[in-house]
Amino acid sequence: MSAVRIRAGDVVSLADVVAASKRLEGHALATPLLRSLPLNDLTGAQAFLKAEIFQRTGSFKFRGAWNRMTLIPETERVRGVVAYSLGNHAQGVAEAARILGIPATIVMPNDAAPVKIARTRALGARVLLFDRRRESSHAIIGRIENEEGVTHISSCDEEAVIAGQGTVGLEMIRQVQDVSLAFDDVLVCCGCGGLTAGIATAFGELSPATRIWAVEPADFDDTARSLAAGRRVANPPGMRSICDALLAAEPGALNFEINRRRLAGALTVGDDEVRDAMRFAMNTLKLVVEPGGAAALAALLTGKIDARGRVVGVVLTGGNVDAKLLAEVLAEGAP
Amino acid sequence: MSAVRIRAGDVVSLADVVAASKRLEGHALATPLLRSLPLNDLTGAQAFLKAEIFQRTGSFKFRGAWNRMTLIPETERVRGVVAYSLGNHAQGVAEAARILGIPATIVMPNDAAPVKIARTRALGARVLLFDRRRESSHAIIGRIENEEGVTHISSCDEEAVIAGQGTVGLEMIRQVQDVSLAFDDVLVCCGCGGLTAGIATAFGELSPATRIWAVEPADFDDTARSLAAGRRVANPPGMRSICDALLAAEPGALNFEINRRRLAGALTVGDDEVRDAMRFAMNTLKLVVEPGGAAALAALLTGKIDARGRVVGVVLTGGNVDAKLLAEVLAEGAP
Repeated sequence: MSAVRIRAGDVVSLADVVAASKRLEGHALATPLLRSLPLNDLTGAQAFLKAEIFQRTGSFKFRGAWNRMTLIPETERVRGVVAYSLGNHAQGVAEAARILGIPATIVMPNDAAPVKIARTRALGARVLLFDRRRESSHAIIGRIENEEGVTHISSCDEEAVIAGQGTVGLEMIRQVQDVSLAFDDVLVCCGCGGLTAGIATAFGELSPATRIWAVEPADFDDTARSLAAGRRVANPPGMRSICDALLAAEPGALNFEINRRRLAGALTVGDDEVRDAMRFAMNTLKLVVEPGGAAALAALLTGKIDARGRVVGVVLTGGNVDAKLLAEVLAEGAP
Repeated sequence: MSAVRIRAGDVVSLADVVAASKRLEGHALATPLLRSLPLNDLTGAQAFLKAEIFQRTGSFKFRGAWNRMTLIPETERVRGVVAYSLGNHAQGVAEAARILGIPATIVMPNDAAPVKIARTRALGARVLLFDRRRESSHAIIGRIENEEGVTHISSCDEEAVIAGQGTVGLEMIRQVQDVSLAFDDVLVCCGCGGLTAGIATAFGELSPATRIWAVEPADFDDTARSLAAGRRVANPPGMRSICDALLAAEPGALNFEINRRRLAGALTVGDDEVRDAMRFAMNTLKLVVEPGGAAALAALLTGKIDARGRVVGVVLTGGNVDAKLLAEVLAEGAP
């Protein structure tokens, strides 16, 4: 289904990530690496927050989408692109398509966050909603690819997407060097593992002593179980999580090829821990982070790794969350 | 009442601001200057947000408090300090006192934001609450000064406090230079005018073409009316505003001496405009800004200056807001 075939032994290299960062220059924001004294006090770590919530379209996904889509030959661009997404990749693809003048069709489940559906439409994409209990996104995407000859931009198994997401890691390495430090640990929110793989690739070559951790929702711990099994394992069907951005069925094949070699491990967080982290982000960090974007912060706050005395990076992957849910999470913690 | 007497012709100089920035190094955060593409699209400006919401204690007030308090002679420190505050100066003074080992008494109105009272106490300060309909903060502060021999740290009329707040401007000038730009306009949330005066001082000498604007709540437009009158004019009593951080009775004397020479003008924003700006900050910028901290953003969003094609700085002065109010503001805008 994927437009880029996966060959055995293929690994995205640091050179691919550096090339992506050149393509992204002037298009993606170099998001800030933030510090919080209360967070340091609470965890005993020197924590740094990579604020991809400020990225164009409100999540890191624009990076991979842009890098992949600039590689589509001019002759094929006119036919357009199609992507499946729960909402952040949707906006990343739609925004890249808008800038590049490529028609975009985005296939989204009808229970995606309303704000994500609305913003994807506002970026000019054609949005096709489907019922994920009755239909498969693969079938829909396949049909559109065949009928319309469009290019499929997968969020989960494309070298160019992984390389684009890897620019988050490249920036983090440079930004922490600017304050004469190096990361001991980096916590990354993980769905199908593309961002994690990209970041792990950048660190693997430039900062190999840094331990990269995938952080997953409790019932979507496919990367954790896949690492344990030594092969890709899917999540059981029918599970739920507040982390709508991280509900992958299973690790991407190429992502997992990288992650199984590069990761220190995978950690899981429960919905209540994520809600607490979102509330901490708003009340103390003054940041709005969506549930899936707060998973890595939740892992740090709940001590899933021993962070005391360590330099820890936390990727806040996205901030696209419905105001209603934000208000609800805030109200839970109000005295 | 102020510990530092105001002499005719006294003006805080750039050298004072630079000296303050040296004292603050390693203690205050150099807060980031953020960009938002949706904000630029909406306003036609190249807007930059100075995120003092991330500052130690959640507002810019730590800067002035620290700069002033490090100047207290060792022999006087042991007796302690006293300050009157609606909550942000309270936390700035309490935090500086905690680090410097100085006992701090903070006089706050009993209707101050609960989160601000709680956080000031959590920083170890003695908090004295009073009813501002029955008592005057001046009388209480004066009594404590006389009885306890403590140093009064005024947020509204101290050269060293103005110089400390001015470091916000110094950082903005350098940060926008780093991206090869200069500010055409800078919008500053304004209570009694100390931050505005400090920023205007830094810009006045380093970037004199930049127009500095004070932004005030609609019924607390004392700086606007004072600029028009050419002398300090107080606000009428009994007015209300959601901007709890900006409820000054009148401009500080020294602040106004600087502001009447340095400002391009003063703008006012209504409570509804502030609520809209807070919601825009959360939903689009992914930032939590308190009402008083969002006034300058509200002025930009509602077109109080013609920002089209201009490089505009907006100071987000603080982020200390009760979760209940945040939830309420969010819920107002939910579909």
